[in-house]
Amino acid sequence: TKRVLVTGGAGFIGSHLIDILMQNGNDVICADSYFSGSKENVAKWIGHPKFELMRHDVTQPLLVEVDQIYHLACPASPVHYQHNAIKTLKTNVLGTLNVLGLAKRTGARLLLSSTSEVYGDPEVHPQVEEYNGNVNCVGRRSCYDEGKRCAEALCMDYHRQHHVDIRIARIFNTYGPRMFFHDGRVVSNFIVQALRGESLPIYGDGLQTRSFCYVEDLARGLLLLMNCDYIGPINIGNPVEFTIKELAEKVRAKVNPKLKIEYRQMPKDDPKRRQPEITKARKILGWEPRVHLDEGLQRTVDDFKSRAQANP
Amino acid sequence: TKRVLVTGGAGFIGSHLIDILMQNGNDVICADSYFSGSKENVAKWIGHPKFELMRHDVTQPLLVEVDQIYHLACPASPVHYQHNAIKTLKTNVLGTLNVLGLAKRTGARLLLSSTSEVYGDPEVHPQVEEYNGNVNCVGRRSCYDEGKRCAEALCMDYHRQHHVDIRIARIFNTYGPRMFFHDGRVVSNFIVQALRGESLPIYGDGLQTRSFCYVEDLARGLLLLMNCDYIGPINIGNPVEFTIKELAEKVRAKVNPKLKIEYRQMPKDDPKRRQPEITKARKILGWEPRVHLDEGLQRTVDDFKSRAQANP
Ligand SMILES: NC(=O)c1ccc[n+]([C@@H]2O[C@H](COP(=O)([O-])OP(=O)(O)OC[C@H]3O[C@@H](n4cnc5c(N)ncnc54)[C@H](O)[C@@H]3O)[C@@H](O)[C@H]2O)c1
Ligand SMILES: NC(=O)c1ccc[n+]([C@@H]2O[C@H](COP(=O)([O-])OP(=O)(O)OC[C@H]3O[C@@H](n4cnc5c(N)ncnc54)[C@H](O)[C@@H]3O)[C@@H](O)[C@H]2O)c1
Ligand SMILES: O=c1ccn([C@@H]2O[C@H](COP(=O)(O)OP(=O)(O)O)[C@@H](O)[C@H]2O)c(=O)[nH]1
Ligand SMILES: O=c1ccn([C@@H]2O[C@H](COP(=O)(O)OP(=O)(O)O)[C@@H](O)[C@H]2O)c(=O)[nH]1
Ligand SMILES: O=c1ccn([C@@H]2O[C@H](COP(=O)(O)OP(=O)(O)O)[C@@H](O)[C@H]2O)c(=O)[nH]1
Ligand SMILES: O=c1ccn([C@@H]2O[C@H](COP(=O)(O)OP(=O)(O)O)[C@@H](O)[C@H]2O)c(=O)[nH]1
Repeated sequence: TKRVLVTGGAGFIGSHLIDILMQNGNDVICADSYFSGSKENVAKWIGHPKFELMRHDVTQPLLVEVDQIYHLACPASPVHYQHNAIKTLKTNVLGTLNVLGLAKRTGARLLLSSTSEVYGDPEVHPQVEEYNGNVNCVGRRSCYDEGKRCAEALCMDYHRQHHVDIRIARIFNTYGPRMFFHDGRVVSNFIVQALRGESLPIYGDGLQTRSFCYVEDLARGLLLLMNCDYIGPINIGNPVEFTIKELAEKVRAKVNPKLKIEYRQMPKDDPKRRQPEITKARKILGWEPRVHLDEGLQRTVDDFKSRAQANP
Repeated sequence: TKRVLVTGGAGFIGSHLIDILMQNGNDVICADSYFSGSKENVAKWIGHPKFELMRHDVTQPLLVEVDQIYHLACPASPVHYQHNAIKTLKTNVLGTLNVLGLAKRTGARLLLSSTSEVYGDPEVHPQVEEYNGNVNCVGRRSCYDEGKRCAEALCMDYHRQHHVDIRIARIFNTYGPRMFFHDGRVVSNFIVQALRGESLPIYGDGLQTRSFCYVEDLARGLLLLMNCDYIGPINIGNPVEFTIKELAEKVRAKVNPKLKIEYRQMPKDDPKRRQPEITKARKILGWEPRVHLDEGLQRTVDDFKSRAQANP
């Protein structure tokens, strides 16, 4: 067992990761500013002697003594990260600088949760780790995309210059229980609208694709990466592609087949396609996703239903 | 006349810019850490009542009252910027954040000196401003390339979010008097070797191309951009392409036709080609380069000769 810091641990992915880390008997510190996360996500561990909750903004220095750092702090949905673009860039850059300083001082191993958005609107399918990406560095998404690219660059430089022990995971679209209702992302939008009996909003023609990874699969992948010898960057995601329209139809079928679909304008710089090439994850981590979209969507719908009933 | 701050003003480009600003009667503050620049470059203005020299590192906050900021502070040659990659990233990101904070507080207009390196190893020729680039975000050049991309993203976000008045110039390879002898860039390397009577080192086969802009042309372009209404990003550079081999032959012809050429290994991530598309600069700024490579090289060789005699 280890002393583990999870920044952004009160968020969607972080809280699932903390569940596994706690179940494995580790000492866990969750550092979060609650900008897009919530204490409810880790409520079951509050009071546990091996769990500590810290209100902390990663743009500020942090002094703790740990063996491993999962650096997840960063709003992940466009609605959240565009709300205050400068803050998003600061979180990515200053936040990553601070945890790298921490890792350098303590000798801790640091895993950066990067993103498929470093590939931007990709012109290579599926995306291999060697692909340099197609990111508009002055667009509205750049606070996130460039922020993460810069965070990766910082990690590599601390690794080369100070031998900081790093891991870089490029996470693709993830979904599952504890996604926020109003997080603005496609899975949560569709389920929330469906449960309300309202029509499902598709941006553009709905033929853009995404590949959706169930959150427990993803968290398992991050653990494997942290505890292996490969520094990355490595893609972690589900390679099975669906169009946004197919996703809408699946949600409709599960919740209420009578729902309508409503077509809206496509946001700017919205990638048309995204699919991870996961050969590296398969070979190096021995990882691949296990939960099919039908199964995962069902669990997510059930979770949204029970949360909607608890907080009507 | 205006109160003008030039960060990196003791550097190669900055010092030429200061010459024009001073000749035009402005109040000029030069803020520099002398990491890659030198007081000698601005020696002729020291003591002038409208000139102030500040020893300042832009990664630290700066409180001055000005109307315009030319933000040039950043080592520009691979040798310098890879010497301490973390520092280069900090200079680009924290440095730009600080001058943006300054511009926000004072209402000053800020011009960022970005670079053609935001296009990385381009797959589009010539490079238009809309091209998203081909940058390896985890490579050895990423401290510079990603640092500048992130600096552009920060400028755009301060512009959108706080209405900071910004200008983004993407500068292509520039040469001329006051380039440092040991700056590691191709023009200075060739001239230094040639004056010593040693062979000219070509990396790779020498068929990679660059387009070289004479520094006075470049500085004039930056002034035009600062004082026009277009925020950019806008390419400023000379569109006439030369291979590195052609450059070597020109230097040889000017200094000593008997010199040998020596082929060496190509550095990693070295762009094969680079050429600005300058339609925007022509139309919007009414700018184009005036000094031909033959003329500019001659002035540069003369400058290198006289400096070599002064500091033997
Ligand atoms: N969910 C996805 O599909 C996805 C895809 C790619 C990458 N990622 C990355 O995974 C990580 C976690 O994403 P998520 O989906 O759980 O998002 P989330 O918004 O649910 O979680 C992020 C957490 O970070 C916290 N946070 C934000 N800014 C902070 C700051 N300055 N200081 C401290 N805490 C801060 C938030 O409060 C939240 O709890 C993020 O880094 C994200 O970029 C997620
Ligand atoms: N020379 C070129 O071909 C070229 C091409 C593209 C972009 N640029 C950009 O133009 C700008 C000027 O380039 P240059 O060729 O004059 O380089 P230079 O190295 O001669 O000048 C940079 C100046 O910035 C100063 N500096 C560096 N880090 C600093 C810090 N942290 N705080 C304060 N000062 C600092 C240096 O001491 C130096 O005087 C740079 O931003 C560079 O990225 C130059
Ligand atoms: O335990 C630590 C050690 C460092 N840092 C921060 O990490 C950053 C980078 O630290 P580093 O030592 O690499 O650089 P420096 O302090 O020289 O900027 C700095 O802002 C520190 O405040 C931190 O938050 N916790
Ligand atoms: O209510 C929604 C939300 C999103 N999308 C689309 O679904 C895709 C995934 O969007 P999301 O914001 O979930 O993630 P990202 O674009 O970051 O992958 C994008 O093409 C969106 O335009 C949609 O059609 N309806
Ligand atoms: O005159 C000023 C005003 C601000 N800043 C710095 O600019 C950065 C960004 O300032 P801003 O006000 O945008 O952000 P905040 O202070 O909220 O981080 C901060 O680090 C400030 O220290 C500066 O150097 N000079
Ligand atoms: O002594 C030298 C220095 C550079 N180069 C090559 O010249 C080109 C321009 O290099 P420089 O470092 O001047 O600028 P940048 O690569 O940033 O454009 C590159 O292809 C280098 O590999 C060379 O052949 N000999």
